[in-house]
Amino acid sequence: MDFQDSGCRCRKIGLQRCSYCRPQACSCSQRHSLTQKGMARPRQLRGLGMCITAVLASFIMGFTVGWFTKPLKETTTSSAYHQSIQQKLLSEMKAENIRSFLRSFTKLPHLAGTEQNLLLAKKIQTQWKKFGLDSANLVHYDVLLSYPNETNANYVSIVDEHGAEIFKTSYLEPPPDGYENVTNIVPPYNAFSAHGMPEVKNAMLAGAMGIILYSDPADYFAPGVQPYPKGWNLPGAAAQRGNVLNLNGAGDPLTPGYPAKEYTFRLPVEEAVGIPNIPVHPIGYNDAERLLRNLGGTAPPDQSWKGSLNVSYNIGPGFSGSEYSRKVRMHVHNINKITRIYNVIGTIRGSTEPDRYVILGGHRDSWVFGGIDPTTGTAVLQEIARSFGKLVNGGWKPRRTIIFASWDAEEFGLLGSTEWAEENAKILQERSIAYINSDSAIEGNYTLRVDCTPLLHQLVYKVAREISSPDDGFESKSLYESWLEKDPSPENKERPRINKLGSGSDFEAYFQRLGIASGRARYTKNKKTDKYSSYPVYHTIYETFELVQNFYDPTFKKQLSVAQLRGALVYELADCVVIPFNIQDYAKALKNYAASIFNLSKKHDQQLRDHGVSFDPLFSAVKNFSEAASDFHRRLTQVDLNNPTAVRIMNDQQMLLERAFIDPLGLPGRPFYRHIIFAPSSHNKYAGESFPGIYDAMFDIENKADTHLAWAEVKKHISIAAFTIQAAAGTLTDVL
Amino acid sequence: MDFQDSGCRCRKIGLQRCSYCRPQACSCSQRHSLTQKGMARPRQLRGLGMCITAVLASFIMGFTVGWFTKPLKETTTSSAYHQSIQQKLLSEMKAENIRSFLRSFTKLPHLAGTEQNLLLAKKIQTQWKKFGLDSANLVHYDVLLSYPNETNANYVSIVDEHGAEIFKTSYLEPPPDGYENVTNIVPPYNAFSAHGMPEVKNAMLAGAMGIILYSDPADYFAPGVQPYPKGWNLPGAAAQRGNVLNLNGAGDPLTPGYPAKEYTFRLPVEEAVGIPNIPVHPIGYNDAERLLRNLGGTAPPDQSWKGSLNVSYNIGPGFSGSEYSRKVRMHVHNINKITRIYNVIGTIRGSTEPDRYVILGGHRDSWVFGGIDPTTGTAVLQEIARSFGKLVNGGWKPRRTIIFASWDAEEFGLLGSTEWAEENAKILQERSIAYINSDSAIEGNYTLRVDCTPLLHQLVYKVAREISSPDDGFESKSLYESWLEKDPSPENKERPRINKLGSGSDFEAYFQRLGIASGRARYTKNKKTDKYSSYPVYHTIYETFELVQNFYDPTFKKQLSVAQLRGALVYELADCVVIPFNIQDYAKALKNYAASIFNLSKKHDQQLRDHGVSFDPLFSAVKNFSEAASDFHRRLTQVDLNNPTAVRIMNDQQMLLERAFIDPLGLPGRPFYRHIIFAPSSHNKYAGESFPGIYDAMFDIENKADTHLAWAEVKKHISIAAFTIQAAAGTLTDVL
Repeated sequence: MDFQDSGCRCRKIGLQRCSYCRPQACSCSQRHSLTQKGMARPRQLRGLGMCITAVLASFIMGFTVGWFTKPLKETTTSSAYHQSIQQKLLSEMKAENIRSFLRSFTKLPHLAGTEQNLLLAKKIQTQWKKFGLDSANLVHYDVLLSYPNETNANYVSIVDEHGAEIFKTSYLEPPPDGYENVTNIVPPYNAFSAHGMPEVKNAMLAGAMGIILYSDPADYFAPGVQPYPKGWNLPGAAAQRGNVLNLNGAGDPLTPGYPAKEYTFRLPVEEAVGIPNIPVHPIGYNDAERLLRNLGGTAPPDQSWKGSLNVSYNIGPGFSGSEYSRKVRMHVHNINKITRIYNVIGTIRGSTEPDRYVILGGHRDSWVFGGIDPTTGTAVLQEIARSFGKLVNGGWKPRRTIIFASWDAEEFGLLGSTEWAEENAKILQERSIAYINSDSAIEGNYTLRVDCTPLLHQLVYKVAREISSPDDGFESKSLYESWLEKDPSPENKERPRINKLGSGSDFEAYFQRLGIASGRARYTKNKKTDKYSSYPVYHTIYETFELVQNFYDPTFKKQLSVAQLRGALVYELADCVVIPFNIQDYAKALKNYAASIFNLSKKHDQQLRDHGVSFDPLFSAVKNFSEAASDFHRRLTQVDLNNPTAVRIMNDQQMLLERAFIDPLGLPGRPFYRHIIFAPSSHNKYAGESFPGIYDAMFDIENKADTHLAWAEVKKHISIAAFTIQAAAGTLTDVL
Repeated sequence: MDFQDSGCRCRKIGLQRCSYCRPQACSCSQRHSLTQKGMARPRQLRGLGMCITAVLASFIMGFTVGWFTKPLKETTTSSAYHQSIQQKLLSEMKAENIRSFLRSFTKLPHLAGTEQNLLLAKKIQTQWKKFGLDSANLVHYDVLLSYPNETNANYVSIVDEHGAEIFKTSYLEPPPDGYENVTNIVPPYNAFSAHGMPEVKNAMLAGAMGIILYSDPADYFAPGVQPYPKGWNLPGAAAQRGNVLNLNGAGDPLTPGYPAKEYTFRLPVEEAVGIPNIPVHPIGYNDAERLLRNLGGTAPPDQSWKGSLNVSYNIGPGFSGSEYSRKVRMHVHNINKITRIYNVIGTIRGSTEPDRYVILGGHRDSWVFGGIDPTTGTAVLQEIARSFGKLVNGGWKPRRTIIFASWDAEEFGLLGSTEWAEENAKILQERSIAYINSDSAIEGNYTLRVDCTPLLHQLVYKVAREISSPDDGFESKSLYESWLEKDPSPENKERPRINKLGSGSDFEAYFQRLGIASGRARYTKNKKTDKYSSYPVYHTIYETFELVQNFYDPTFKKQLSVAQLRGALVYELADCVVIPFNIQDYAKALKNYAASIFNLSKKHDQQLRDHGVSFDPLFSAVKNFSEAASDFHRRLTQVDLNNPTAVRIMNDQQMLLERAFIDPLGLPGRPFYRHIIFAPSSHNKYAGESFPGIYDAMFDIENKADTHLAWAEVKKHISIAAFTIQAAAGTLTDVL
């Protein structure tokens, strides 16, 4: 419509121009008159025409403004709103609830494969549904477990020259007060030990015939602390349970690489992965001392005899006189059997990207009561699930799907978590943003301990700043502040320490096999002063609710902080529009690891030259990665948040970066450890090793038979590391 | 603003209501007066106020309408527009251009690793840039190649009782007319043959000492056709070049699993993958006949002696009299050397999803002139690139990125394509929609031949319907119609035949190792009447431009149809909003393959029972997959095309389905063949085998030493297949 044609004098229409209108010109009783060119009309009509024209033009203008101001996506939740939900989540969590969950879940033993642990699974499933999760299901596998023979107890004895057993180690640990009537307590044993009754006369055989493990007071007894129940130290009658598999991430020993479902092909037990071929049995330090005395040996005065008594080798040097004819006899009669285990898998469906997952998982099975391990983690997981459920019940949904997992049979080789990873490997590697572990929330009460991928460093720091410190003397401070003061990073004193991921808990399959960004956080002891391993009563019957309540965390505030940290990590990863990873931190970490492995090599300076070993390709790849990371970061800051495809493209690159470090061919001899940057150390599975391929190739290289071959292996692994980092840099680029 | 409060009588505002306005009521000279409740105003002012009110309200209404009518995504190109671009693309392609490219690219030999093939790479790169591609780069690798020794020719001789060579096979093929002055023609040889001069007296040794390959007229000579240059049959002096590696997808023999870059660790040559340890040499049928005569043998009258003369085994039975003391001596002096090869990689950047790739790749290297293999494919690739470039120059961009690849060293074991796949494995498996191969466009001129993933069946049919048939007698028909009439599917006569993918060309690494949906299409002979293998002059010096021009495709219309088909597949895959895969066809294919392997097992009915072998888990998994496919299909038809995130989620599932069939552990003994549904047959690499793990475990099972172990292997592979299909079904589900 043209205004001049319609006979109106107003050439411009807009709110500002409305004062041109004369009242006499307003009329619209006959709308069509406006379109009759050149027709004479009364002033009233002209005014009305102009008004209608203005109304129409205003509509068009409004339409235009509406069209162009609407973002090309679902309305983004504002930063303030996002922050307020995080605050709601954190303040919803309560120490008292964690205490209640811990109390409830530690009354009975929950050994994997038992009825009691299935009942706990069902209880957790029911609670998750009640909390408001969208789904909660039991998922089972039939895996090889190992139990003591109930009618033929395990023990170690001394046999005299007449064949009489003159000393026997205890079958059981005396139960703590209040637990005397509990049944189904598994005695100390080493799961998956070979069975047998090897006898060893004095020693000097070529290979070990059996291994007796004991908890050395040097490792498990803190000076000046009473044994449990008066204090948190290890009683002399306590022995540490554990499995003795050498799985290297294979999961169920009979179904390596595949989930142990009903239809799955199983190896014959003699071909099972990682089962030792000699008996192994754990004893307490009281029995260890008596054993050594009866054999005529003496405990070294400094008590530094380390935890493994190798029957054929370590016992014997102290023998003399009549004791010389005595023998050690092991009695190990464990039974391996295929047993059904149960994970509980819960979900809160993502609103925008249901096909992107953030996983929070921890195990539920325990050796006995699991007072610390894992139930401080189980209780924390439960409180986090409850708090997210509360948000969901209030109408909130995360942007991405959150998966809660209560794993079974962790103590038998991370079986529940690994089988589920195997069953869902494809979907998980295509869709997982991150895995946060929820094993034991405490192993001490001094400060925070975090092990995670470099991608998560900044997020952990950010979230720790938003949580109150639970430490005495830090009442108005943040968790970050107490953590920084108590455990600054050795490389950079302005940051708290964060460690590399190793293994020893359920994140393993997710990080080391699938390459999903992972992290774990718990409260720990003061490593500078507390030299004992883990915590003294680890994996004994004395890990009870009272241990936590009376000694470790009476207010449950440490566990609350851990819950808040784990929960906030999940929340941020599931709900931020842009995944809150920091890729430049990975570049920095790679730079440090490369420098560190190069420094390690320098003690073989001459051999490096002789064999033409160069780290240059590694340094060059790290440099390329750093540049790609900077460039990616720059593009990330420029991404149009109103363009959902552009955001998803950047997020996909972030999500898949950790995956880029996975080599499908795996590490030498460890096909399920496939991460080229990190692996559980070949010498201590709990610790993480960087550039494990290169590290292991150089390990003890002085003593290798074929020097040329040994250095060729080093060169090969430098090449693989360089290629992998270069390829990872490639995934950060724009097109190709 | 409340209208009653402002003193206006109008309670409702809208265009329809404008007739309520009275001219006397219009006034807006003082805007604030509208907000002064109950204030007396002149009629003019009131009229103006109402008008302003109406304008404001109209603006708000316009804004609202604009906001809500704007779709939540970039405007989708309409279906008609999409179709019109496809038509533009197809009609842009010209037979004459393919002819020119073929003429230009076949004047000289282009053996991998030679200067001439590098020059052709640069020419193609230059042309791609000129065509309008966004990038075109050379990418090099240093791979192990194998050439004849230029100063020590390969041949086979007969040595008489005095040690004199009384017969020698030819060193060379006589060059065809017009090519007499061409240099750098590699004589017939078998690349990667061991070198050596084995002599064999008569036979009956335990193992072969060498292999002489010859082209049997039964396989390479069509009755009633003249040898080249008078016809397209194999001349007696021609011999077929080829490599004799047994790589099973490893790529460069020295760098299995990793790209052969400067920094890459290389195996010592004695540990190289797939190199035979005995000499192999190809001869023509004239020489073969003379060889046999000189040895005292005779060619069997039916000429059905097959292509391999095993020196220690097949020669000899005809010996008698003085010939009995004669010996065969092979002279093979090939030299393996690490040589630089060059791929050309070109891209057209995707407008919306630059991080999604459709790859069109074919090799450029040829044994000699490459008249058919590969240059009919190279010429077609060039014409497709030119036509896409034309669209780009006109302002069009595909939704996704298109990658054009001219591979090197295909003839030496698919090296160029495999090394590039290894270098870019991560990015390719995360981002590739499909790989379309562009090797030889013809191997005959009867009808179309297509081998592809079941995901592409429907798209191939659809596109074939949109292309004109080039066949005589089908002038107004579609390619689909002539194809259907000439080669209906044996399972369903209403569809043209489509085969399973095997290997023998560059799609191998993309399909069999990485699990990227792949396909190939070319014109082929009439399999019912033409029983010779491939085409007679395959890999000889007689594969020239004239061979194609004079005999196979004088109008170049067959090649044009192939170009249109390949090009249209790329276009549809790169530009359709929803990836045009059909997942239900995969379900149908799996059902057929399961039935087929089960039928094969039935001849061992008793043993199946004895060893407890059941195919039930496989059938059950296939059923679950079918249901998941139907459910996915239903959701796909309902997806909101205006929601870019929802579309990308469904597309990601489609893209990653083929990947779900990849087992990182690979097939037994073939770690780089990782597709559980398809593999190159263990007995003929050109053919595809379905359920290769099960098939190979059952192959010749009657003759296996340990029956129990053999059937356990079958059970294992049924379990792996069932799991893989079940897991693939899982990737089609919504959340978990």
